[in-house]
Amino acid sequence: MSTTERRPIRDRARTRRAVLDAAERVVTQHGANVSLAAIAQEAGVTKSGLMHHFPSREDLFAALVEQVITRFWAEVNAHVDPADDRPGAFTRGYVRALTGDSAYLAELNSATGLLAQLGVDSMEHVLAVDPEDPARWNRAFAADGLPPGRVWAVRYAAEGIAIGIGTAYVTHEQLRLARAELLALTETAPE
Amino acid sequence: MSTTERRPIRDRARTRRAVLDAAERVVTQHGANVSLAAIAQEAGVTKSGLMHHFPSREDLFAALVEQVITRFWAEVNAHVDPADDRPGAFTRGYVRALTGDSAYLAELNSATGLLAQLGVDSMEHVLAVDPEDPARWNRAFAADGLPPGRVWAVRYAAEGIAIGIGTAYVTHEQLRLARAELLALTETAPE
Repeated sequence: MSTTERRPIRDRARTRRAVLDAAERVVTQHGANVSLAAIAQEAGVTKSGLMHHFPSREDLFAALVEQVITRFWAEVNAHVDPADDRPGAFTRGYVRALTGDSAYLAELNSATGLLAQLGVDSMEHVLAVDPEDPARWNRAFAADGLPPGRVWAVRYAAEGIAIGIGTAYVTHEQLRLARAELLALTETAPE
Repeated sequence: MSTTERRPIRDRARTRRAVLDAAERVVTQHGANVSLAAIAQEAGVTKSGLMHHFPSREDLFAALVEQVITRFWAEVNAHVDPADDRPGAFTRGYVRALTGDSAYLAELNSATGLLAQLGVDSMEHVLAVDPEDPARWNRAFAADGLPPGRVWAVRYAAEGIAIGIGTAYVTHEQLRLARAELLALTETAPE
């Protein structure tokens, strides 16, 4: 294929991506009730351009949630040390990613982030788009080689911190101390 | 004072309490945009009866948040063992209360509970009604006699679990194992 023939496909993918990124920003800032017109404007496309890619609001939100699920996994895996072959390597990556190293996840999970903006329905949105998401996470943690109670305690602590980051309930000093403790707790040799 | 003279005061307190309890149920079920008329109906009072106690929507929501803050503390303290004089006694009560022993807190903090229904503004509501709430929790945990990193790790794990209870992300078995691990982590003698 020549470059000329491939350009329209690349342009379509680029526009789709621009709309999803715009949707993520606008929903994070203004909430889930924001208009498609506002999202189109943020993405620099017309509303009919947006609707060419996402025929309905439901289509757009499903694709947005799918992008979030994919990126959540990618961010965690990007914080797993490839040279770390000891038990707990995945959990350490998860802790690092959720306690500040991934700016994307810190924002996504925060008390004012996208998941909070999607509100009580955020879990339902995720399960509707990807019903296997919880089981996939649970398997990844269960396979990480840590004692079961330890791995769940550390995982949920990272999630509790992620939600509190940026609020008066988690000071910088608490974040620093809790994060160091969680990483230390993943180093305990399994029985 | 005779019983007859005291009755009106008791009735007023009882009506106020009935309206707040109704507000908590209705907002949990239908979200923060629910009408005052729906709350009055649930409480078994007229809308003007409700507005006699709470002249505006803001007054009602501030009182609701105040009730939640007070009850959160009461539930945690009710799960602290008065015979437990070792370091970590408060944290153990917090863990028990947030990981299932307090039905009220399990519901309040869950992914579909009142705090999620209040959405991204729930933290702002709390801080507006009681700006000292975060500092008070932080002091109570800091005074509990556990090593600082340990106390924050266990606290945030309990919060992470509370948010996941009832979803596919926290199975019964994970809850049981994580809870036992957190309680064990509070038994570590401080350095």
